[in-house]
Amino acid sequence: MSEGFTLWFTGLSGAGKSTLANLAAEELRRRGHRVEILDGDEVRANLSKGLGFSKEDRDTNIRRIGWVCRLLARNGVIAISAAISPYREIRDEVRAIHDRFFEVFVKCPVPVLAERDVKGLYKKALAGEIKNFTGVSDPYEEPLKPELVVETDRESRDQSLGKLLGALEARRLIRNGVAR
Amino acid sequence: MSEGFTLWFTGLSGAGKSTLANLAAEELRRRGHRVEILDGDEVRANLSKGLGFSKEDRDTNIRRIGWVCRLLARNGVIAISAAISPYREIRDEVRAIHDRFFEVFVKCPVPVLAERDVKGLYKKALAGEIKNFTGVSDPYEEPLKPELVVETDRESRDQSLGKLLGALEARRLIRNGVAR
Repeated sequence: MSEGFTLWFTGLSGAGKSTLANLAAEELRRRGHRVEILDGDEVRANLSKGLGFSKEDRDTNIRRIGWVCRLLARNGVIAISAAISPYREIRDEVRAIHDRFFEVFVKCPVPVLAERDVKGLYKKALAGEIKNFTGVSDPYEEPLKPELVVETDRESRDQSLGKLLGALEARRLIRNGVAR
Repeated sequence: MSEGFTLWFTGLSGAGKSTLANLAAEELRRRGHRVEILDGDEVRANLSKGLGFSKEDRDTNIRRIGWVCRLLARNGVIAISAAISPYREIRDEVRAIHDRFFEVFVKCPVPVLAERDVKGLYKKALAGEIKNFTGVSDPYEEPLKPELVVETDRESRDQSLGKLLGALEARRLIRNGVAR
């Protein structure tokens, strides 16, 4: 039975965390791993109903996700979080309760995100219509030493996924994708 | 790899839920299962900080435990809850989100618990000094159709544990304890 670990994506809204998390989950399941994605919305509905977007509430939400990831990871599951998780200190707190933790910084500059603006949120945030919008009206603290950085304004999805799989294989966290 | 399920103990404070949960966990680990006990205090600290003992807060707490049990169970883990979980409707809600759910009613009458009163809580509750004390000043709704009832005022610990293991084996939820 393979060992579990937590695969923690962090980055701004729209940077591509969920997309990459889902692609990675699909490939890891194909390789026979047990994988659980802790989707931000599902977590907010089931674990953090009533919490808002103040620093304190965000921190509580991230700590809860981290605690559940740890439970899963220590039971052989690859637990994936794709929450923004803007504060370095809390991410490092979550890291500290894990044996195996792999942080992926999904990097993309705000101007590029504002240009894409799939959900129309950046336009509103830049116009001052959304309070506490990470990267615009609320802080985002970049990881100082993430296990991996993917730059979604410069890399294709496949390339980012490839980098991620390569890095996980190199650390022997996952099975390789060839012969089964 | 064996299938996970949720083993849900319910009963009054002091009835023996945690004791039996711990004995069962030990034996199930010995048989090679992955087991995770969601301890009430740990859950309150990590998932439900700030919640009190009103019906609404108790329900929220139990729903969260249930949701985490489900995540673990569907990933091959035997998830064990030993929270009082006084309300039938919420227990049944938790059951409904599971594929495999095994409810154990740990039964012991209040007069016997008040006599034992390991933590001195029943004395205080019966004197009216603790509000919302389940079974005394707050309701406890017995399960109507639990998978198993153990009566801790009439059975030894070993006997209750034996009944539990037998019932789990009979339903093929766990490996048998003989030849490995």
